[in-house]
Amino acid sequence: MLGLGIDIGAGSIKSGVFDETGTILEETRENTHAKMKNAEFQKAILSSASPLLKKYEVTGIGVGSPGPIDNEKGIIHSSANLPLLDAFPIKEILERETGIQTKLNNDANCASLGEYFFGPGAGSSNLFVFTLGTGLGGGWIQNGFLYNGFQGNGMEVGHTTIIKDGALCGCGKRGCAESYFSATGLMNRYFDRTNQKANSVAEVFQLANDGDSHALDTIYEGTEVLAETARNIVNLLNVDTIVFVGGLIKSWSLFGEHLETRIRSQVFPILADRLKIFHGENQAILGAGSLVLEGMNPNRSKI
Amino acid sequence: MLGLGIDIGAGSIKSGVFDETGTILEETRENTHAKMKNAEFQKAILSSASPLLKKYEVTGIGVGSPGPIDNEKGIIHSSANLPLLDAFPIKEILERETGIQTKLNNDANCASLGEYFFGPGAGSSNLFVFTLGTGLGGGWIQNGFLYNGFQGNGMEVGHTTIIKDGALCGCGKRGCAESYFSATGLMNRYFDRTNQKANSVAEVFQLANDGDSHALDTIYEGTEVLAETARNIVNLLNVDTIVFVGGLIKSWSLFGEHLETRIRSQVFPILADRLKIFHGENQAILGAGSLVLEGMNPNRSKI
Repeated sequence: MLGLGIDIGAGSIKSGVFDETGTILEETRENTHAKMKNAEFQKAILSSASPLLKKYEVTGIGVGSPGPIDNEKGIIHSSANLPLLDAFPIKEILERETGIQTKLNNDANCASLGEYFFGPGAGSSNLFVFTLGTGLGGGWIQNGFLYNGFQGNGMEVGHTTIIKDGALCGCGKRGCAESYFSATGLMNRYFDRTNQKANSVAEVFQLANDGDSHALDTIYEGTEVLAETARNIVNLLNVDTIVFVGGLIKSWSLFGEHLETRIRSQVFPILADRLKIFHGENQAILGAGSLVLEGMNPNRSKI
Repeated sequence: MLGLGIDIGAGSIKSGVFDETGTILEETRENTHAKMKNAEFQKAILSSASPLLKKYEVTGIGVGSPGPIDNEKGIIHSSANLPLLDAFPIKEILERETGIQTKLNNDANCASLGEYFFGPGAGSSNLFVFTLGTGLGGGWIQNGFLYNGFQGNGMEVGHTTIIKDGALCGCGKRGCAESYFSATGLMNRYFDRTNQKANSVAEVFQLANDGDSHALDTIYEGTEVLAETARNIVNLLNVDTIVFVGGLIKSWSLFGEHLETRIRSQVFPILADRLKIFHGENQAILGAGSLVLEGMNPNRSKI
């Protein structure tokens, strides 16, 4: 049996039909633009999903979107890339138009659930996933269920304080984990050191690779902050598996070993011994689609 | 109907029979000493509980003890005050000797559950309790159930990093919350500033009360760290209620207002609006006894 995953990303909607092994059988892509309002966005969503739903018999639909959303009601309030959306009731619309049960969650939670079902830490009963992208996100899966918190605001690990009175974060507070390890954070901390604006985080990583000491220091500091952030999660929740995903994983060779070593040295020994640490590519369609599977046993997952 | 709470504290075992309103009907106290081994400690536990069990019909027994313990197996591995205890199977012994179902947990978890049933935040569906004592502990109650983590090691909030590379903590790491706000932490940070050893944390608070600037700075810094620690818990778990308990609450007037203001300013506004913050006296017998009630509805709790 099959599921449909819909990933609402920057500039496009990607839909894909997948099976219980995590194989994507077919996908579509529909472009979006910043001026889209509810009606036009609805058209784009249905254009993306309809050809697949005509061809495949799908049991459930999972939608992943940047926030703020209301996962319980299935509403996308708005989005950085779609600022004119106004409380778009995507769950209601898709269920009405397709007759198929639909779930919505934020992209970090979807990525986490995708790892639970199809990633290297699949099946862990106590799993935390860090998403290393523009920001720093997180998701927690206990026995196959996401921890959503209040209206889906849970696990904002990027906005936990690791260096009290430290660098200014986009959220307006100081010393958040995200202000040290995320694309934005690394670029800003590189600027602090050099007064030079990098064009992208890839440039910071490239500079580090070329031996630039400021870039190396920036990444070293960010990695230490990320390790302390993981320490806090492990000492609080006793997760047995951590997976790092997201765009910054491409540069894992520049920070991964330091990160792992530092996490293991910082958590309680009884928790370090059982801790597994992985990194992986985040497949956004599969992550969104995993909402269909939530609560199922990953070893015998049947959609 | 009635329950029995047993609090294993520093230098004594206190037992008390309580009813569903949280009234303690009668209590006993049995002294302990540092040279007690399993057999002698077993005698003391039974001496403490037996007179009450003869007089009252009790449905369940809850035991609170400092760690390390194994809450699942009901074993006290050892304790700072009872170093010669060796994997003492308190659950098995009490159930065998009394025929009454017995639960064991660590003292911070018991204090938290006590607050859930009988404290000012009673009945919150998402409650975090900070215990401010020699160390800094925490407990998390979701819908009436403790979050225990791995073998009861969960929610070690005192050993989360708030100031990376900060002050040395008793755990061997740097910058833990506990190294800034706890009896030990406040005394050590006062020493850093003055090279003078306070005899107790009460002395640090008294000095602050008398206007000593180093004592005031120490408490100010500790309070800010504790507020950031609470921020992290709220942004991660979206708890709707925080209760501070423990010995340091006696000096609440010296830090409470600053603490509350700072927590509210640091968490996401959507989470600050619904957040309730309380402080209260921790009744250790009632906390231990609350283990009997775990999972029950606090508004209609029947033991």
